[in-house]
Amino acid sequence: MRQVYMDYSATTPVKEEVLQEMIPYFTEKFGNASSIYSTGRQAKHEMDAARKRITDRLHCAPEELYFTSGGSEADNWAIKGIAKARRSKGNHIITSKIEHHAVLHVCETLEKEGFDVTYLDVDAKGFVDPKAVEAAITDQTILITVMYINNEIGTIEPIVEIGEIARKHQIVFHTDAVQALGNLPIDLSQLPVDLMSFSAHKVYGPKGVGALYVRKGIRLPNLIEGGAQERRRRAGTENVAGIVGFAKAVDLAYDHFDEHVERLIAMRERLIEGLLDSIPDTRVSGDRKQRHPGNVHVCFKYIEGESILLSLDMMGIAGSSGSACTSGSLDPSHVLMAIGLGHDIAHGSLRLTIGDFTTEDDIDYVLEQLPPIIDRLRRMSPLYEQAKGAE
Amino acid sequence: MRQVYMDYSATTPVKEEVLQEMIPYFTEKFGNASSIYSTGRQAKHEMDAARKRITDRLHCAPEELYFTSGGSEADNWAIKGIAKARRSKGNHIITSKIEHHAVLHVCETLEKEGFDVTYLDVDAKGFVDPKAVEAAITDQTILITVMYINNEIGTIEPIVEIGEIARKHQIVFHTDAVQALGNLPIDLSQLPVDLMSFSAHKVYGPKGVGALYVRKGIRLPNLIEGGAQERRRRAGTENVAGIVGFAKAVDLAYDHFDEHVERLIAMRERLIEGLLDSIPDTRVSGDRKQRHPGNVHVCFKYIEGESILLSLDMMGIAGSSGSACTSGSLDPSHVLMAIGLGHDIAHGSLRLTIGDFTTEDDIDYVLEQLPPIIDRLRRMSPLYEQAKGAE
Repeated sequence: MRQVYMDYSATTPVKEEVLQEMIPYFTEKFGNASSIYSTGRQAKHEMDAARKRITDRLHCAPEELYFTSGGSEADNWAIKGIAKARRSKGNHIITSKIEHHAVLHVCETLEKEGFDVTYLDVDAKGFVDPKAVEAAITDQTILITVMYINNEIGTIEPIVEIGEIARKHQIVFHTDAVQALGNLPIDLSQLPVDLMSFSAHKVYGPKGVGALYVRKGIRLPNLIEGGAQERRRRAGTENVAGIVGFAKAVDLAYDHFDEHVERLIAMRERLIEGLLDSIPDTRVSGDRKQRHPGNVHVCFKYIEGESILLSLDMMGIAGSSGSACTSGSLDPSHVLMAIGLGHDIAHGSLRLTIGDFTTEDDIDYVLEQLPPIIDRLRRMSPLYEQAKGAE
Repeated sequence: MRQVYMDYSATTPVKEEVLQEMIPYFTEKFGNASSIYSTGRQAKHEMDAARKRITDRLHCAPEELYFTSGGSEADNWAIKGIAKARRSKGNHIITSKIEHHAVLHVCETLEKEGFDVTYLDVDAKGFVDPKAVEAAITDQTILITVMYINNEIGTIEPIVEIGEIARKHQIVFHTDAVQALGNLPIDLSQLPVDLMSFSAHKVYGPKGVGALYVRKGIRLPNLIEGGAQERRRRAGTENVAGIVGFAKAVDLAYDHFDEHVERLIAMRERLIEGLLDSIPDTRVSGDRKQRHPGNVHVCFKYIEGESILLSLDMMGIAGSSGSACTSGSLDPSHVLMAIGLGHDIAHGSLRLTIGDFTTEDDIDYVLEQLPPIIDRLRRMSPLYEQAKGAE
């Protein structure tokens, strides 16, 4: 059976060129990057080169990028670190209701520890309103954290405007850019952002590697303490293979950036339009323009996301109901609740995210397979029967 | 030139069999282990199987092992977590002066946050005295953390006795077992240990993966919050390739355990005896019996560890002055200070750690190269001249 992977926002395969660059660092070039003999120095050198390859793409200094074990660690470090460093200045944090759980759960924990957190509403398309950010600021506000691109519905947040407000009020601004890396140009010499989280496995790099950008001058206590790695800011033997793979993945993403984005957008639009044309009672979530190039998020009335996923899986199609991190939960996602969807429609959500290995044939296959699946599920749904009966 | 790697306690190469098991998880089996479609479920299945392979070797339940990004994260999580969870019960922590920095620096941070920490002395061989542990206990003591094997001098600590004392007083006991995994049998069904930290890259697995054992019933708040991974206790997309590699590495370590240990001990003893025979004014650190099977740690009077390392490196030999994590520092290590060495001798320390790829020829080569290096460095040393003149 045909296998169609459409969950690139959950994770991506490591590209062959990335894996090939990584392999020598597992075996012959395995030295500890903190050792002073040749193989150690070589590892350090290659790691520094990898860091520079990434920071050149992000337009920041190599000294501003710290490798972590992934996006979640980067988010935890940024938020807990600023909360701790600036506790004496204030105890108020501003975020949005549609952040990733690596942000939301940290904020909830900080609330238990005496912090006040404002969870901003978003509009029906998932946008945070910069004016609402400004209105929420108090003399206790020490941190604003709003994501760059929402991982479920793909909405690109106005982080420039939000960052400018933060800067005006001298408040630290963090953004989770896990979905933005490789899908938007990121120019940290221009963006008014103090801290930015990244993950390698969302851009065809390996799992278990990420990074946190920390603008020069921002004081951030360590989350993981110990050895003197990462200029004493993140302890633990450096994952050189992973870091080199991350750099290669970022290189590939930005070498072919325009092409990648144009290709994804064309396929994304064909898929969205095709679904709208062929399946009645379908609602596209998020904004149609300010959108992750590969994100298709739709809700089908009267049915359950999980049944859609299982039916798709039987046809070889891998999709998601929202975020992989919350699978197992039966509640509709916090993001869909925040954009104001009722339980009835939010339950029937489907996220199909496309990427560099998606083909036009894959789009055709989904457009061929999905409508009969939705039709069959609806015919089995008592909700649908009720609704149609009432018409 | 011959290349002789003798820094296995800093890091190990990934064994070819380990790498081969990992590779499919980068590319074709790349699914997100938290997703519900086939490739995701497959990843989850393989990860659970890997966890079980490890816990079978450690004689604990799969539900008691949580994967982390490495030993440092495991140490941070264990200590900060217990400090937070048991803060209302007391604020006193007992540790030793020779712990890894991932333990010591965390304890120092906790001191700034209002905890009292007792840093126990060790004897001249580096042993923590269980009686001293018991004597240090107060009604405020919530955690004892003493390492299993010291990473610099190789001393195996009496963790059974210490654990029994902890248990008697209902105090949580954590041990950093990063150097013990693969070098000692570890039977958690017998050991009185509540939390144990592990790292994959010290046992021929990949860097960037580790684990924390958490005995059933021990409450431990998350260090990294967010998604529901690792049964909601450690957020972040699972590093499936790394985890599978870790399991294979642990399998290999314990499949050939007796053979591995006997081989290492025989080579270790030949190297130690050879150095003592051929280089005057040499002192072996640590205990000769209760010792890491691959650890050779010696101090050469009158000279500098760094010059020894650089000279060895020129001959293709990779050694260490102690711990890779502290390289860059000019002070003698905290471990050597704690065992009572004076600055004069502690400065001339050399750690040579051997492993599964070390050969008898490597031992011969080091025994051939090292004596003339020490002799030459001493002849250049004003300290040596002074000392010899005084005789």
